[in-house]
Amino acid sequence: MAETNAALSNPRADLAALDALERKLFSLRYALDEIGSLGPVIDPPKATAERSEALAELERARVETLCDPEVGDMLARLADVPELLSETRRAQVRVLTRDRDALVRIPAEEQAAFSRLTCEAEDVWRRAKAAGDWDAFAPYLDRIVEARLSMAAARDGSRDPYDVWLDEYEPGCDAAFYDRFFSQVKDCVVPLLADCVASRHKPGRACVEGSFDVRRQGELARDLVELEGLDMDALWLGETEHPFTGGPSSGFVLIASHPHRDDVLSNAFSMLHEGGHALYEQGVDPAYRLTSLRGGTSMGMHEAQSRFFENLVGRSAAFAPTLLASLELRFPGRFSRVTPRQLYLAENCAEPGLIRTEADELTYPLHILVRYEIERLLLSGEAHAADVPRLWAEKYRAYLGLEVPDHARGALQDTHWACGDFGYFPTYALGSAYGAQLKAAMVADGVDFEGACARSDLAPIRAWLGEKIWRWGRSKDSDELIRDACGEPFSPAYYTDYLTEKFSAIYRLGA
Amino acid sequence: MAETNAALSNPRADLAALDALERKLFSLRYALDEIGSLGPVIDPPKATAERSEALAELERARVETLCDPEVGDMLARLADVPELLSETRRAQVRVLTRDRDALVRIPAEEQAAFSRLTCEAEDVWRRAKAAGDWDAFAPYLDRIVEARLSMAAARDGSRDPYDVWLDEYEPGCDAAFYDRFFSQVKDCVVPLLADCVASRHKPGRACVEGSFDVRRQGELARDLVELEGLDMDALWLGETEHPFTGGPSSGFVLIASHPHRDDVLSNAFSMLHEGGHALYEQGVDPAYRLTSLRGGTSMGMHEAQSRFFENLVGRSAAFAPTLLASLELRFPGRFSRVTPRQLYLAENCAEPGLIRTEADELTYPLHILVRYEIERLLLSGEAHAADVPRLWAEKYRAYLGLEVPDHARGALQDTHWACGDFGYFPTYALGSAYGAQLKAAMVADGVDFEGACARSDLAPIRAWLGEKIWRWGRSKDSDELIRDACGEPFSPAYYTDYLTEKFSAIYRLGA
Repeated sequence: MAETNAALSNPRADLAALDALERKLFSLRYALDEIGSLGPVIDPPKATAERSEALAELERARVETLCDPEVGDMLARLADVPELLSETRRAQVRVLTRDRDALVRIPAEEQAAFSRLTCEAEDVWRRAKAAGDWDAFAPYLDRIVEARLSMAAARDGSRDPYDVWLDEYEPGCDAAFYDRFFSQVKDCVVPLLADCVASRHKPGRACVEGSFDVRRQGELARDLVELEGLDMDALWLGETEHPFTGGPSSGFVLIASHPHRDDVLSNAFSMLHEGGHALYEQGVDPAYRLTSLRGGTSMGMHEAQSRFFENLVGRSAAFAPTLLASLELRFPGRFSRVTPRQLYLAENCAEPGLIRTEADELTYPLHILVRYEIERLLLSGEAHAADVPRLWAEKYRAYLGLEVPDHARGALQDTHWACGDFGYFPTYALGSAYGAQLKAAMVADGVDFEGACARSDLAPIRAWLGEKIWRWGRSKDSDELIRDACGEPFSPAYYTDYLTEKFSAIYRLGA
Repeated sequence: MAETNAALSNPRADLAALDALERKLFSLRYALDEIGSLGPVIDPPKATAERSEALAELERARVETLCDPEVGDMLARLADVPELLSETRRAQVRVLTRDRDALVRIPAEEQAAFSRLTCEAEDVWRRAKAAGDWDAFAPYLDRIVEARLSMAAARDGSRDPYDVWLDEYEPGCDAAFYDRFFSQVKDCVVPLLADCVASRHKPGRACVEGSFDVRRQGELARDLVELEGLDMDALWLGETEHPFTGGPSSGFVLIASHPHRDDVLSNAFSMLHEGGHALYEQGVDPAYRLTSLRGGTSMGMHEAQSRFFENLVGRSAAFAPTLLASLELRFPGRFSRVTPRQLYLAENCAEPGLIRTEADELTYPLHILVRYEIERLLLSGEAHAADVPRLWAEKYRAYLGLEVPDHARGALQDTHWACGDFGYFPTYALGSAYGAQLKAAMVADGVDFEGACARSDLAPIRAWLGEKIWRWGRSKDSDELIRDACGEPFSPAYYTDYLTEKFSAIYRLGA
């Protein structure tokens, strides 16, 4: 009671402090995002060292600002008087408290040591990958696991450490949740893929093969994000080694793509993917623009938007005529003998491969499954770095039917573990499943999904996603968004049904 | 004594605090510089509003950091124990104390009100210039003068207000200093220009006139900064409306240029100019890279470097063959009948004009003289905004022999006063004079200046300037740099002698 009275003594001052905090955090995030995103794309080579120093200091300022004890007191006082706060401010207090809790319990020295360790590990990983040398990286992986276990204990000693990190990337999700999810995915996709591989009716890619001018691919990229419906006056479009989307502000979203001369579809779908992320960033309620509510609510929900436009829209039969027209516009004559049906089949060849980032829509979740299962063993102590190559080989054999020839195309292919990002991979698969459920709800709500794809006018799809997902920014968690949008909790069945139906038809299974 | 003991009690903690302060300020300056420089060049149109918010917040964080009372105490304690500090740290304490003093005495509210006023005034100025409407802008100019007087009084009530602002842009220089300087410039240049105008021997520009592909001008721009000796691995080169140089770090210097289709020399000299700024930024001692000693020491000394490469090198007879070869490389055949002598004459047509930014080397200081004399009257209260058009007309008539046809080509042409930057203009002329004295000292030291220009190898010139000026960053003020480099105090005679000799020869005066 005394506490509440203390809070009531000056809620206006607390609200002013909340606004000042939000503006300061906004400016630091803006700087971190612009410098961090653009740096590797446009900076000259010698900029790297000082940019790293600047980013480390700005991040330190962000952490110090949020961890200030006065900020903790202010947030606690405001959380005590929800009746005095608007809905937006209640959400700000909730999200800021969560962001703060994630930082404040880990000693600054431990956090700094972790940053140094992962910085070094990334460098070691890069060289180990080039040399195909797992043993060079393994000691670092063990140390990073150890550090993550210690940090998880500092954050919440009562929880399983892996749960702490799964929750970090997808609030509300733990290993029990993902176990159920991946079990359903495995039960569906492993036999489905085996049937596709065994099918005599295999789609071919011949109609899209060849060499494609990279500059024209750049023009195609612009066409596609424009067609997707991005606000081109709030978009910066560039090229880089690894495609990404960034967003310092709602008026300044960045997409970097990477055209490949010998694969015109690779960058086309990459653009639709990144464009989905960008639509989410641009679609958040402008009222949130200077607050912690701006941006996507979770990794999984962000990935849901990108894969929605890449796969559910982009690789659909209904969208094939639209994509074909875009290709034909930039490469006149090159596709004049290709039918939409041929293009659709070429986009949807399901072929087991060793590399996650090159995987098709069907095999992709199996790559994630392998990583999820191994992470789970590492974080529980049931496996160590030395066991990973064996586990990797066993699981690629079991799920994808492949032998892993070397570590570069095996457990060294991704950078995530070198960065300490355990718990991140699963959100990639979860996002696809969110997307399938959202599509079903959209159609049930009367959106003419196929008509929109066929007419090259995605406005009805954007309107539905904008209203149900994008505009809420971080003010709602994924589970609440799904419930409100779909009228029921998350269910992976929409995803497995979608994959089964789509690939059974393409490969004429049971026909 | 008690104070000193308190300081001695823990100088190591103070030194650690100094390093932490420097790193934090470095990161904020880095963000302000990158976001502020690149924003107008690469951001999409809708980025502007939130970028302004982010910049305002980052600047607020910079000011708050520096004005923290604990920082003041720490700097005072360290200033008390110079014997415990390295030379670099003594310079850091001195520069940081000066930077802090410039901010700490002005109340935050007054500073904020000034920012709002100039932000609004810039907008009004832009529209007033487009409409040629002095009366629309005049009330703002009076309010800005008033605000600057009040802020000068807050900073140092014992000094003349204009002196406070002159010192801000060029530490150590006041109105008495500039009065002497401009009086010598006026006595030399006004009659010299009149003689040139009256001369029958006028150089012509016909040999460089025509239309020049803008993309090739971009290639020429790159050639010229490479020839100038910039480290291309630490340089970002772009294009924008108003050319500038920025430098978030020593490894990341930005130059934005603006080619004009109908004037190939304009952008060529603009590049040499901006390249001079960039050489200074790149040339600072790497030991200063994360400290307040990085960057140029003053506006005047920065302008000295840019005008050195633009004029003393770029527009010299010795450099003409080098520039001609660069032009010929990018525009093959176009200059095959032009001689170096013709190019040299074309670069050096002295013609009275109304627009400062288009002025040649001889008339340029007269444009500055006009602004200096009017600023001086405004800040002393002897003139008000309503008097400016009349003063402007009188002075352009007296010094340049021109009638001012409208305000857009008159007192509304520059943005500086709308930003409140009184005291900035004079540094432009001072920089040219510094440069002339530096060149004389360099030649006296045995540098083969003309040989370096003629051989297209500016290394000896860079080596001398690097050693005498660039490497010192902000650790020495301009007057100390000039004394140490030239063995004597600043003297404008080198500048007036240089102009007299050069333009007397070109216009065959007294021949």
